[in-house]
Amino acid sequence: MKIDMHAHHFPRITREEAAALSADRGPWLRVDEGGKTGQIMRADRPFRPVYDSLWDPHARLAEMDAQGVDIQITCATPIMFGYEFAPEKVLPWAQRMNDLALEFCAAAPKRLVALAQVPLQDIDAACREASRAKATGHHGVQIGNHLGDRDLDDEGLVTFLQHCANENIPLLVHPWDMMGGNRMKQWMLPWLVAMPAETQLGILSLILSGAFERIPESLKICFAHGGGSFAFMLGRVDNAWKHRDIIRKDCPRLPSEYCKRFYVDSAVFDHGALRLLAEVMGTDRIMLGSDYPFPLGEQSIGKLVAEQPGFTDADKRAIYAGNAVEFFGLQSLVG
Amino acid sequence: MKIDMHAHHFPRITREEAAALSADRGPWLRVDEGGKTGQIMRADRPFRPVYDSLWDPHARLAEMDAQGVDIQITCATPIMFGYEFAPEKVLPWAQRMNDLALEFCAAAPKRLVALAQVPLQDIDAACREASRAKATGHHGVQIGNHLGDRDLDDEGLVTFLQHCANENIPLLVHPWDMMGGNRMKQWMLPWLVAMPAETQLGILSLILSGAFERIPESLKICFAHGGGSFAFMLGRVDNAWKHRDIIRKDCPRLPSEYCKRFYVDSAVFDHGALRLLAEVMGTDRIMLGSDYPFPLGEQSIGKLVAEQPGFTDADKRAIYAGNAVEFFGLQSLVG
Repeated sequence: MKIDMHAHHFPRITREEAAALSADRGPWLRVDEGGKTGQIMRADRPFRPVYDSLWDPHARLAEMDAQGVDIQITCATPIMFGYEFAPEKVLPWAQRMNDLALEFCAAAPKRLVALAQVPLQDIDAACREASRAKATGHHGVQIGNHLGDRDLDDEGLVTFLQHCANENIPLLVHPWDMMGGNRMKQWMLPWLVAMPAETQLGILSLILSGAFERIPESLKICFAHGGGSFAFMLGRVDNAWKHRDIIRKDCPRLPSEYCKRFYVDSAVFDHGALRLLAEVMGTDRIMLGSDYPFPLGEQSIGKLVAEQPGFTDADKRAIYAGNAVEFFGLQSLVG
Repeated sequence: MKIDMHAHHFPRITREEAAALSADRGPWLRVDEGGKTGQIMRADRPFRPVYDSLWDPHARLAEMDAQGVDIQITCATPIMFGYEFAPEKVLPWAQRMNDLALEFCAAAPKRLVALAQVPLQDIDAACREASRAKATGHHGVQIGNHLGDRDLDDEGLVTFLQHCANENIPLLVHPWDMMGGNRMKQWMLPWLVAMPAETQLGILSLILSGAFERIPESLKICFAHGGGSFAFMLGRVDNAWKHRDIIRKDCPRLPSEYCKRFYVDSAVFDHGALRLLAEVMGTDRIMLGSDYPFPLGEQSIGKLVAEQPGFTDADKRAIYAGNAVEFFGLQSLVG
């Protein structure tokens, strides 16, 4: 059993639909003649070349078959979040995207599972949409790791996390809107440098602020890309917490003690990195996630885990499927 | 033999001296009554509490004795760089700081070794000062990892690196002026999240731009804090290079092939992180570095390396001293 819990889709949104969100920045999909390839667009600017598995569930299912993926948990491509636009435009947008995601998954309801998106800039609306999405068939919510200058320690965002804990709505936190600005113009540096830092910042914002102390332990929260640079930098963070008062002031426990409060996916692309990740997080807190269908994802889904030296068969089964079944409540699909 | 190659000092600069560099941002040292503690200041704003080993070589030598450190390589605290000020003010400032560093080291010329600073915003002046500093007794130069929006792939900065390669001037690259801005106001997040990202960005700027192809292989360049998040993210970078054309366009080799072109220090604070670092870099490219005398440094200098599972005695000797002797040309001090 192989469950890939980190995959993205992008519906065939027209330019007109995107313009209702934002005339000059709304994301839409331009499909090339033949229907096999296309571009994610922002107004008239190409954002990323893509291919049909991103929007066509049948193309996707064929690839899942070829890769031996039994179940895939799919969520929005982060450019669809819309957090930067007016809340009154983003609630209907999120609802529409969430309904389209369920349509996408309806092609194979036992194999395709959706996570919703929410208008995080309006916490009340975000809580309502998370609950509505759950009621309509979503298995959780994906959020970005921040909202402008507000990171996950922000009072409103903590309220949203508390809501998800109370309603048993699992969360995937994905980096987006990457720091670094003009200094990362080439070579996809925002994806290589800023995304791991964003994810680490998201985790540390929950730990060092003491937010984890105020959020129910029942919260199911997973960070993408193996938690970014978090696991490798944790020794530096623990050392800093021990020796500098201003780092411990809001965080009563050693930062590494909070690792049991969250999950990560397995998308780290290197056996040494995965070994360290497993030591830091435990194999019971890592879930197979590929970042499909993008070129920066794992191209042979699950190969790294399958070939990981030192992992027992039980470790591999947990990472491949068992942890995700528990986290996302997929018992009815695998039972 | 234990050589600590990552340590900082800050001379007893007066507020008046600092004002000659910048009236509202010049860094200086306010020493408390009793002379044992103080504050690094920017104009009238406290920047960081410090203690006498930062400016008093005799206090430092007593700590080196207690820690069993035979030789220490010391460089400016990055707030002293002055890269943001007018070049004509920064050249004399850098010269003065470099002369003060030699005075500091003169307290124990066989045990304290200095790295210079240069006015990097004026590449000609930076090259001249690097050469002058070498002639006056410095064993290399410390630079910041960027200069505003210019990273290490910037043409001027590459010219400086080429100069250092040609003149056999070893370089330590230290993160500073950290990305993230308003989002990292508390808990020293710039030191925990942005510094590792800055260092990774510095390394990737040399790799992905193809700059390493244009710089002589003789360049000796070392990145602080174990290279930041570089080693852990390298799998992601290699994978991205393989599968996305815009990442390989200026970089002819797999990014991991460039690891042999640079060194890192050992300041990673965790055995799992150090093991991964040694796998990625080789134990011949790691040098003991503590970030002394700051609370975010290794408090028991060399303990992590000494107790590292899997390191042979030869590995430990190389990291403790052998690699630094070769890198900085310290044969006359240890022979």
